[in-house]
Amino acid sequence: MAYDGENETGLLVGGQEHASVNVGQGINENAADLLEPLAIGELASEDNGKGSWLGGNVFSERVAYEDMTAIDWVFEYAKDRTRFKKLRTEGSWIAKLFDACQVWLVLIWTGIASGIIAAAIDVTADWLADLKLGWCRSTLYLNREFCCWGEDKTERCEFWLDWQSLSASSFWGYLIGYAIYLGLAVLFATLASYLVTRYAPYARQSGIAEVKTVLGGFVIHHFLDASVLLIKSLGLALAVGSGLWLGKEGPLVHVACCCANLFMKIFPKFSNEARKREILSAAAAAGISVAFGAPIGGVLFSLEQVSFYFPDKTMWQSFVCAMVAAVTLHAMNPFRTEKLVLFDVTYTRGWHAFEIAPYCLLGVIGGIYGGLFIKANRFVSEFRKQSAFLSARPQMQVAIVALASAFVNFPNLFTRFQSSEVLAELFAECDGNESMFGLCHRSGSAVVLLLLAAMVGAFFSTITFGLDIPAGIILPTMTVGALYGRALGIAMQALQHRFSSSLIFSACEPDVECVIPGVYAIIGAASALGGITRMTVSIVVIMFELTGALTYVLPIMIALMIAKWVGDVSLLQGIYESWIQFNGYPYIGREYQVPDIPVSKVMTRLDDISAITATGHTIESLENLLETEDFRGFPVISNRMEGTLLGYISRSELRFALQQGRLKRGLRSESECYFCSVEFPDLKDAIDMRPWMDGTPTTVSPRSRLFLAVDLLQKLGLRYVLFSSKGRLDGLLTKKDVWRLLEVNAQSDQMIDVDLDTVT
Amino acid sequence: MAYDGENETGLLVGGQEHASVNVGQGINENAADLLEPLAIGELASEDNGKGSWLGGNVFSERVAYEDMTAIDWVFEYAKDRTRFKKLRTEGSWIAKLFDACQVWLVLIWTGIASGIIAAAIDVTADWLADLKLGWCRSTLYLNREFCCWGEDKTERCEFWLDWQSLSASSFWGYLIGYAIYLGLAVLFATLASYLVTRYAPYARQSGIAEVKTVLGGFVIHHFLDASVLLIKSLGLALAVGSGLWLGKEGPLVHVACCCANLFMKIFPKFSNEARKREILSAAAAAGISVAFGAPIGGVLFSLEQVSFYFPDKTMWQSFVCAMVAAVTLHAMNPFRTEKLVLFDVTYTRGWHAFEIAPYCLLGVIGGIYGGLFIKANRFVSEFRKQSAFLSARPQMQVAIVALASAFVNFPNLFTRFQSSEVLAELFAECDGNESMFGLCHRSGSAVVLLLLAAMVGAFFSTITFGLDIPAGIILPTMTVGALYGRALGIAMQALQHRFSSSLIFSACEPDVECVIPGVYAIIGAASALGGITRMTVSIVVIMFELTGALTYVLPIMIALMIAKWVGDVSLLQGIYESWIQFNGYPYIGREYQVPDIPVSKVMTRLDDISAITATGHTIESLENLLETEDFRGFPVISNRMEGTLLGYISRSELRFALQQGRLKRGLRSESECYFCSVEFPDLKDAIDMRPWMDGTPTTVSPRSRLFLAVDLLQKLGLRYVLFSSKGRLDGLLTKKDVWRLLEVNAQSDQMIDVDLDTVT
Repeated sequence: MAYDGENETGLLVGGQEHASVNVGQGINENAADLLEPLAIGELASEDNGKGSWLGGNVFSERVAYEDMTAIDWVFEYAKDRTRFKKLRTEGSWIAKLFDACQVWLVLIWTGIASGIIAAAIDVTADWLADLKLGWCRSTLYLNREFCCWGEDKTERCEFWLDWQSLSASSFWGYLIGYAIYLGLAVLFATLASYLVTRYAPYARQSGIAEVKTVLGGFVIHHFLDASVLLIKSLGLALAVGSGLWLGKEGPLVHVACCCANLFMKIFPKFSNEARKREILSAAAAAGISVAFGAPIGGVLFSLEQVSFYFPDKTMWQSFVCAMVAAVTLHAMNPFRTEKLVLFDVTYTRGWHAFEIAPYCLLGVIGGIYGGLFIKANRFVSEFRKQSAFLSARPQMQVAIVALASAFVNFPNLFTRFQSSEVLAELFAECDGNESMFGLCHRSGSAVVLLLLAAMVGAFFSTITFGLDIPAGIILPTMTVGALYGRALGIAMQALQHRFSSSLIFSACEPDVECVIPGVYAIIGAASALGGITRMTVSIVVIMFELTGALTYVLPIMIALMIAKWVGDVSLLQGIYESWIQFNGYPYIGREYQVPDIPVSKVMTRLDDISAITATGHTIESLENLLETEDFRGFPVISNRMEGTLLGYISRSELRFALQQGRLKRGLRSESECYFCSVEFPDLKDAIDMRPWMDGTPTTVSPRSRLFLAVDLLQKLGLRYVLFSSKGRLDGLLTKKDVWRLLEVNAQSDQMIDVDLDTVT
Repeated sequence: MAYDGENETGLLVGGQEHASVNVGQGINENAADLLEPLAIGELASEDNGKGSWLGGNVFSERVAYEDMTAIDWVFEYAKDRTRFKKLRTEGSWIAKLFDACQVWLVLIWTGIASGIIAAAIDVTADWLADLKLGWCRSTLYLNREFCCWGEDKTERCEFWLDWQSLSASSFWGYLIGYAIYLGLAVLFATLASYLVTRYAPYARQSGIAEVKTVLGGFVIHHFLDASVLLIKSLGLALAVGSGLWLGKEGPLVHVACCCANLFMKIFPKFSNEARKREILSAAAAAGISVAFGAPIGGVLFSLEQVSFYFPDKTMWQSFVCAMVAAVTLHAMNPFRTEKLVLFDVTYTRGWHAFEIAPYCLLGVIGGIYGGLFIKANRFVSEFRKQSAFLSARPQMQVAIVALASAFVNFPNLFTRFQSSEVLAELFAECDGNESMFGLCHRSGSAVVLLLLAAMVGAFFSTITFGLDIPAGIILPTMTVGALYGRALGIAMQALQHRFSSSLIFSACEPDVECVIPGVYAIIGAASALGGITRMTVSIVVIMFELTGALTYVLPIMIALMIAKWVGDVSLLQGIYESWIQFNGYPYIGREYQVPDIPVSKVMTRLDDISAITATGHTIESLENLLETEDFRGFPVISNRMEGTLLGYISRSELRFALQQGRLKRGLRSESECYFCSVEFPDLKDAIDMRPWMDGTPTTVSPRSRLFLAVDLLQKLGLRYVLFSSKGRLDGLLTKKDVWRLLEVNAQSDQMIDVDLDTVT
C-alpha cells in the first residue's frame, strides 16, 4: 500500500490514458499546488472537458439503475452536462438544433397523445356507462347524450331504448333494467381487473403514489411501459363505465407519464434519469389538464402534489405540455360543448356575508371527511393485504364490490348515472327549469336522497380505492363533497325562505333567490378534495377552471383553508402519502420530522460497511463481494487500519468494470484490482478501477446534525452521504437508510413532535 | 499546539460548561467510538438538546448580519430548530400555542394591512388623477366616478366641474385645462420624488429587484423599514396620480413586505432570517393579490418571480396571506363594484381557429417589445447613472419626465386618463353602446390613435422606470400591450368585414360580430407582460382573475409561450434580473451558466485566506485582524504548516466573543484566545472561542466540480463552502465569490454557452 504523490499528480496533469479520471480523495496532497489558479476571463475558453473526471466513456457505457433504487441527481446532471458539452464543442449546428428541439418534441407529442387518449377514454367510458341503462337504436356506438342530441333533456327521446322499457309492466321493466345494469357493471369491472392483474399489475389503482415516488428519484422498472399504458387506458374506460366509485383523473396522470416515457425512448438523451424526471413532471401536468380541461390546474397539481424537483424550467415545460394537451382535447371535443370548461356554471349572483358560516362548516366537514377517509381506506387496505384469502383473489374482490356498488347505485338517481353527470347537475343553478334529478324542488326528500348518496359514495369509494383496477380518488371525493354540499345548500335555502325577514338574511334582495345551492356543492367538492389530498392552490384553480365560477374564489379558498387545517390536525398525510407509506416506497416526504441528533448516532459505521480496500483485491474477491453483499455501492478506503477515504464505487459500475476486464481483456480471476496508484503497476494483468470510482464523494463531518444529511440527500438529490473526519471514513448514510430511519421515527412518535408552524 | 483527545471527548460527553459547544473538526479522533450507536426507537426520547453544538446562548445573543451580506440558511434553520426544541421541552402548552399562532397572526395582519393600504392608495390616486382634470363641486374629496355616481358615463354630469369648462371659449378652456393638468402632474410627481429622495431612498422604483435579492438570502438593512412603508405608500399615490407612465403593482409587493416586516418585529421568533424570508414570500403574494384583486395570481407570482426558497409550506402561507388581503380589499371595496374582478369582461362568444395567427403575432410582438424594452431601459439607466449632472438631480429628472408625459398625454384621449381606466375600456367588448373613447367606430382613426398612444407609452415607460420615484412596470406594460393589441383587433375586424365571404372567415356566423377586438387587447397585454417579466403561468392566472375571461385561456397561453420564446432568444434576463444586475446585487439567478471546472481553479486558496490558527492569538491580535480584514468570516486551522481545518468563525461571532471577553469578563488585550483544547488551559485569563465557532463546516474535495459548490450554496443556502482534502484546508468559496465569478463569466460569454434546453 503506497501513495505515490508524484505519479498521482502526473496523472492529473499529464496526457496519459487516465488523465480524465478521478483519482481518489486524499491522495493528491500536491495536486492543489500544481493546479494553477485560473484568471476568471479564461473560464469559458479553458477546460474543454479533458480534465474532467466525469468525461470519457464511463457514462455512455454505464449500466442502468437496478429496480427500486435511488438515482443520484447530482451524478445524472453531471452526466448530462458532459453530454451537452461534448455536443457543444463537437456537434454541428444541426445536431445542436435537433438536440434543443427534442425536449419540445417530446412535450408536444406527450400533450397530443394525452389529449387523444383522454378523449378516447371519455367517449368509451360514456358509451359503456350508458350501455348499462339502454342502447341507441339508431346508432349502436352512440351514448345517450349523442343519441338524443338536440332533444330536450327532461323528455324521453325516441332513438334511445331504455332497458326498462323492454317490458310493458313498469315493475318487470325495472327489474330487467336493474338486472342488466348489475350484470354489465360486474362484467366491465371484472374484465378491467382481469386485464390489469393478468397483463400489467402496475396499471392498477391511481398510480399517483408511484409517480410521486419515481419523481422523487427512485427507479421502478416497467412502471411506465407501453403495456401499462395500453392496459391502463383500456381498463380505465371499463372501470369508469362499470359505475364503480372511482375516477379517471389520477390514472390519467399515470397514462400521460407512460406516453412521455414512450416518446423519450426515441431520443437517447432522455436515458438520463434526471432529465427523464423533468419531462415526467410536465407529463403529470398534462394528465390533470386533460382530466379536468384545466391546464393551469394541471401545472399546479404537478407542482404541489407530485413533483419533487420543480425548477422554473419544469414549470414552463409543464405549462407547454398541459396547454398542448388541453388544445388537443379541445380540438377532439369529446363532449361537443365547444368549451374547455367541463361544468360550465354561470351564477348570476354573488355571495353574502352570512354564508361564510356554512362555507366554513363545509370546510370543517371536508377536513374531517378527508382524515376519516384516509384512515378507513388504510384500514381496509391493511385488512385486504393481511387476509390471504382476499389477496389471492383480486378479481373476485372487484366483482363483489362492483356488484354491491351497482346494487346500491341503481335505485338512487344521484348514483345511477356517471359521477361527472351528477356533478354537473349538482353544480348547476336552478334557473327556473327543473333539473334532471328534481333538485330544484327544495324538498326535504332531495336532501335525504343527497345525504344517502353521499354516504353510499363515501363507503364505496373507501373500499374501491386500492382494488386491483385503474381507479382514481379525485372524482368520487368531489362527488361526495358536492352531494353533502348541495344538501347543506338546500337546507340553507329553506332556512332563508322560512326566516327571510330575519336580520341575518337582511342582505338578501326581496324577489331574487338569495342562496344558491350549487355554490355549496362546488365548495363542498373542493373542501372534500382538500381534506383528502391536502392540496390548496391547485384545487382552487382546478375548481374555477372546471366551473368558471370566479366570483366564488374567496369562499372556496376559505373552505379549503379550513379543510386543510382540520385535516392536518387529524393526520399529517394526504391520501397519496398514505399509500406511499402503505406500499413501503422509499419516498422521503416533506411531512417527516427529522430528529435533531448528530449523524454519528445513526450512521452505518465503518465496521459495518463492506468497504473496499484500495489494494489487495482480485477480480475474484470483488466478484465474491458482489455476490455476498447487496449494498448499492461500496466506499473505497486505503486500508482497514488507516481507513482513509479514497472514493466510492457503485455496485453497477463495479460489476461492469469486472465484466469488462473479464470479457474484453480476458483477465483471470487472480488479476489484481487496485483503486489507487501502486508502486509497480502490472498494467497487463490488473485493472485500474479508478475510472469507475467517484473520487470526490460528498463528505461531511460525523458530528453534523442529521438535518444536514437529509438536506444533502433531499435538496441536492444525492444517493448517499459519507462521513469522514480528518480524511478518515467514519460511516455513511444512504437515502434508503434515512428513509427507514424517518419512517420508524415517524411511527414511534406520531403527532408528538409536530411543529405546528410546519403543519403544511 | 496540542490536541488532547481525552480531554476533547470528555468535553463532548461530560457535563462541563462547554458540553454543548462545537469542538473543531478533526480533533476528536476517538469521539466517534465513544458515541454509542443509538437504537432507532430511542431517537425521539434521546438527545434533548444537551449535546447540540447549536444549543445554548450563542444564538440568542448572536449579532445581526451586516448590511449586504448573505445569510446562511442552514445555520438559520438550525437555530430555529433549537429554539423550537427548547420550547417543546420546556414551554407550557400556552407558550406552544402562542408560538404556533404567531406565524398566522403575522400573515393575517399583513394581509389586512396590505388590503387597507392598497385601498387607500387606490382611492387617493384616483382622486389625485381626477383632480388634474377637474373637481367635484358637491364634495371635494370625491373623484369623478363617485361624484357622478349613477349618472350615464357618456353624458356630462352636473356635479363634476371640468377645468376646461372654466372658460366659455373652448380654445381657452382647453388651454386652461391643459395648463392645470401639466402643473398638477409636475407637482405630484416632484413631491413624490422629493419625499423619496429626502426621507427613504429605498422607497424608489418598484422594489421587486430588491425583494428578490432579499428573498435570495441577502441582507439589505432598512429596506423594509416603517419609514419606507410610509413614504412608498404616500409617494405611490402621488406618482400614480401624476399620470406618469408607471404602475402601482410592483411597489405594492414592496409595501406588503414592509408591512410583514413591521409585524414580524413584534415576535422575537422572526428575528430568524430564514423564517423571516418565508413570511416575506407570502407577503409578496399579498402584494400582487391586492394590486390586481388576484389572490392566486399573487401566489404564483411569488413562486415564479420573486421567491427563492418556496417549499409547500410557503405556498400555503402565501395562499392564506393573499386570500386575507383579497378579502380585505373586497370588504373595503374601493371601486364600489362588489366584485373582486377589476375589469369584469363578459365575452359572449368564443374564438375561431383563424384567429390563432394574429394571436401568435401578438406573442411575437410581445417578445420583441420585451427584449427591446429591457435593453433600452438598461441603456437609459446606464446613461443616467454615468451622467454626473443627472444623477445629482433626481427630482429634476422626475419633474421633466412628468412634464413631458403630461404634455403628450393630455391631447390623446387614450393617455389622458388613468392607465387602469384605459385598460378597462380596451378590454371591453363593444356591446352596442359606444365606448368612452370611441373605440367601437372601428375607424382607421382609432387605430392610429391607439398605435400613437402605444408608442408614447413605450417611450415614457422606458425612461420612467428607474427614476427616483415609486414606480412599477407591470401596468404600463400591460397598457402598451393592450393598446397595440386592440389596434390589431380592430384591423382584424375590418379585414373580416371586408372579406367576410372569404374561406378563412367561413367559421364566422353571418349576423354576429365575429372578431372581438377586446380579446386582442387582453392577449396583447399578457404577451407584452410576458416579454418583459418572462413569467408564464402567473400571468395567465392574473389575466383571468383580472378579466374573468376563462374562455380565452388557450389563446393567452399560446401568445405567452411565443412571447417568452422570442424574448428568451433576444435576452435571457427579465426586467427584474436586469435591474438586479444593474444595481450589482449579489443574487445568483437561475439564468447563470456554471462553467464546468473543478473548484480548485477558482477557489480562494489557503495562502490568500486570513485563516485563524487555533492557538497563539490574543484578544488584541484578533481585534487587529478584524480591523485589517473585511472578510465575513475566518476558517480556523491548527497551524499554518499543517493547515488542518478545525472550523469556521463568522466575523460577527468573533467580534461578539471578543466584546464579551472585554466587557463581561474584563480581560486584557494580551489574554489568549484558543480554538482547540490546550494542555494547560488558563481559563481565568483566556477565551475559549469554540462556542462561537462552527465546528462542522460543510467541506468538499477541491477536485469537485464548481457545480457542486454552486448547488451547495444555492439549494442548501450555505454562505460559504470550504474545500479540504485529508482534513487539510485547501481553500474556500463564499456566495459572493461565486456570484462575482458567474457574473464575470456571464458577461464574457453571453449567449455562447446557452443550453437551449434550459432557455426558461
